[in-house]
Amino acid sequence: LSNANWVNDLPRLDVLKPEQEETVHDRAMRLLEEIGLKVGYAPALELLRAAGVRVDGDVAHMERGFVLEQIAKAPKVFDLRGRDRRKDVTIGGNNLALSATGGAPFTLDPDMGKRPARMADYLDMVKLMHVAPQLHVQVSGVVEPDDLPVRSRHLDMDRAIIRYSDKPYFAVGATAEGSADAVELASIAFGGREAIRSAPVLMGIVNPVSPLQYDDRMGGSLVAYSEGGQCVVLMPYIMTGGTAPLGFAGALAQSTAESLAGAALVQVVRPGCPVVLGGFVAEMDLRSGQPMFGTPGSGAVMLAMGQMARRYGLPQRGGGAFTAERQLGVRATMESVMTIWPTLLSGANLLLHAVGWIDGSLCTSIEKMADDLQFIHAFEALLANRWDLSEEGFAMDAFREVGPGGTFLGAANTLRHFREAAAAGDVPRYTWRELLDRYEDPGIDPAIEEAMDDFIARRRGELERVGA
Amino acid sequence: LSNANWVNDLPRLDVLKPEQEETVHDRAMRLLEEIGLKVGYAPALELLRAAGVRVDGDVAHMERGFVLEQIAKAPKVFDLRGRDRRKDVTIGGNNLALSATGGAPFTLDPDMGKRPARMADYLDMVKLMHVAPQLHVQVSGVVEPDDLPVRSRHLDMDRAIIRYSDKPYFAVGATAEGSADAVELASIAFGGREAIRSAPVLMGIVNPVSPLQYDDRMGGSLVAYSEGGQCVVLMPYIMTGGTAPLGFAGALAQSTAESLAGAALVQVVRPGCPVVLGGFVAEMDLRSGQPMFGTPGSGAVMLAMGQMARRYGLPQRGGGAFTAERQLGVRATMESVMTIWPTLLSGANLLLHAVGWIDGSLCTSIEKMADDLQFIHAFEALLANRWDLSEEGFAMDAFREVGPGGTFLGAANTLRHFREAAAAGDVPRYTWRELLDRYEDPGIDPAIEEAMDDFIARRRGELERVGA
Repeated sequence: LSNANWVNDLPRLDVLKPEQEETVHDRAMRLLEEIGLKVGYAPALELLRAAGVRVDGDVAHMERGFVLEQIAKAPKVFDLRGRDRRKDVTIGGNNLALSATGGAPFTLDPDMGKRPARMADYLDMVKLMHVAPQLHVQVSGVVEPDDLPVRSRHLDMDRAIIRYSDKPYFAVGATAEGSADAVELASIAFGGREAIRSAPVLMGIVNPVSPLQYDDRMGGSLVAYSEGGQCVVLMPYIMTGGTAPLGFAGALAQSTAESLAGAALVQVVRPGCPVVLGGFVAEMDLRSGQPMFGTPGSGAVMLAMGQMARRYGLPQRGGGAFTAERQLGVRATMESVMTIWPTLLSGANLLLHAVGWIDGSLCTSIEKMADDLQFIHAFEALLANRWDLSEEGFAMDAFREVGPGGTFLGAANTLRHFREAAAAGDVPRYTWRELLDRYEDPGIDPAIEEAMDDFIARRRGELERVGA
Repeated sequence: LSNANWVNDLPRLDVLKPEQEETVHDRAMRLLEEIGLKVGYAPALELLRAAGVRVDGDVAHMERGFVLEQIAKAPKVFDLRGRDRRKDVTIGGNNLALSATGGAPFTLDPDMGKRPARMADYLDMVKLMHVAPQLHVQVSGVVEPDDLPVRSRHLDMDRAIIRYSDKPYFAVGATAEGSADAVELASIAFGGREAIRSAPVLMGIVNPVSPLQYDDRMGGSLVAYSEGGQCVVLMPYIMTGGTAPLGFAGALAQSTAESLAGAALVQVVRPGCPVVLGGFVAEMDLRSGQPMFGTPGSGAVMLAMGQMARRYGLPQRGGGAFTAERQLGVRATMESVMTIWPTLLSGANLLLHAVGWIDGSLCTSIEKMADDLQFIHAFEALLANRWDLSEEGFAMDAFREVGPGGTFLGAANTLRHFREAAAAGDVPRYTWRELLDRYEDPGIDPAIEEAMDDFIARRRGELERVGA
């Protein structure tokens, strides 16, 4: 494998018995058939109607046969292309790609604490994500720069990813127009519309507005990414007791229904367009009404969602280093590590929010990015582990040399393997500043940079006129 | 199940393919057959010779047929009795019992930092272990009280466990004489020799002196616990590059060989005596010569050891909240949580060092005991998780009531399940002081306390005379 992502050969942890898996599938399908999916973006509703789906008002009732027929058109495995082709990633199968957190309006400044994020913070984070080989997919919107105009900010954020890094990326656009901008910017940077359709370069995250609803913004974003042939990550973010029922069975069925419905819609727009099933179930703290993260229940749901994705033969998203804590420390670390394990064991193909998440996604912490990366190394080593069960691997000569009660310190076998063992060694330690010091500008073709800037200048003008 | 321990119904994570498992078994057996086991305790060597094992000097060469015949006599599942019978624990099968760390000479004082431990620290920790329902087995020697005479300290430590708690326990004795003392004290407290033989109350940890050696102390301890009918935990603690070869294949075969050889010896002493297979593989930091803990490699070995134990049909020990860090914090927590997961997934039946370990086992931290207990709660909730896949569990009525795009906040189903969901809730938070405040003395029959004290006074006199 030449691609940059990890390969996860660990056994999968199926937490649902076969008949339970069947029941969850049946309930998810019943939700789509009986309760239906509210679609707030009129063109999407029309596409579904034209495809033969029964539509009542703004609610589409997809039959299970339709859903399964559509999602069968999506690729089981696909590549995302980087500007540096050595950084291509494969999504699906036993591949696992990681990315940092995203979407937070604040940063947890190592010196000043929580404050609105600025473009300078954003650029530091982009550079840190570029430096870390464990972060395979860049995140446009790793934090929201408060010092840029909100209408055109998505263009600046995507541009910075393309300019200062050379990895595939998550685009930040989340409306019909914003996502169309993302596709256009990518087509400028990666050789045109047709080039990126045949070899996608970015992923768009589409969150249904749960329960069972894709609204105008999200429906529009889904259609724009699909038309552009870019990967759509269907990511229900649901909170039990609020946007889903209490208890995990309903949340699991609902999440499955929502992500499958989105995946089916993508295939209606553009058959064969890559999709990733998502699902992010947080429990509501019933004392405060706030979501909790890193809880055992959400870990169990993640395992079940991975199992369902294998049933459907589609890539799955999991993650991440979640915590509701507002400060770095013991408890934040505990919750963060707790959630990475179920992701790995669920067989998820994308590990989002792998590093940097703090304060229930309100903040991105560059300090925690570096902390989390250290334990990410440990997972990398665990996955890379290969048992050498040869005679040499068992060191039988060393046992003969040393005998019972002896020491292996100076044994010939030990000296022979000393160098490789020292290289495998411990999990490294570093700070975010040390990581940033390693940043080297990958450079970009000046013509591409100029073309991007021309497009952004034009769009900025248009968007500001709309706003005025 | 009425016993206090957890039940682990998670699927097991088999990391060795069937033919790899077979190879590890073969190599372990070859180590015992060809390299042999050095036995420094003469009575044990004689027992093996009398059982038909070939002995050269002080090295026993057990054939695989002999080993498998002996270990088949050990129970697959057994109970350990507590003074409070509601705190009995079942060891083996899909049961999982937890205990705190042990064996550290220092305590990490929350105010003063690292210092020698005193009996007052020890008693606080015994009480904390008593309070926490997640700690099913008490640990005599959770820390070593430096203010008590070293020769008779084991008696004071075991006595404090019996007096101030009512759970089954690990005894601290680790010589022929010390372990015989432990058995005698237990027989005083639990109704006599025959009573504790038919229903064991304690476990003794026997560490081979790796590679492939049980010395005079450990061989003597093994025989004393076996004669007393108490559970023997065979726990090789090996460091790759020092007491084992570099790389994990040799360490895995060696650990398997050492624990199986010990288990076979226990059965020679007393057929049917309960045993637990152990194994604790730390990697040597090749720059410093120090052991590393919580590394991905040791996690992989733990998974493999669990798989081997299932092959042999014997209970397995795993753990714990390991770290080489000297202070509590992000890195210590990261390493600690990293190691609990493989323990769970390995199907281990005993989770030793679940809480309180710091500084590579040089210190026990009562503060970390409370911290670690918090994430232990998360694992407890994960194991307790049951999917309610009924119509009510899926909350189909709520979906009908709420419809697509609605909210579940006030739905009838939500209100119906609010109380139970709030009770399931978040992972609790507490400090060690708050836990200690919950301690209630379980009391003890004054006649038993007096008899224990008489025995201890007599033994203390004998031991001091030997020392003079």
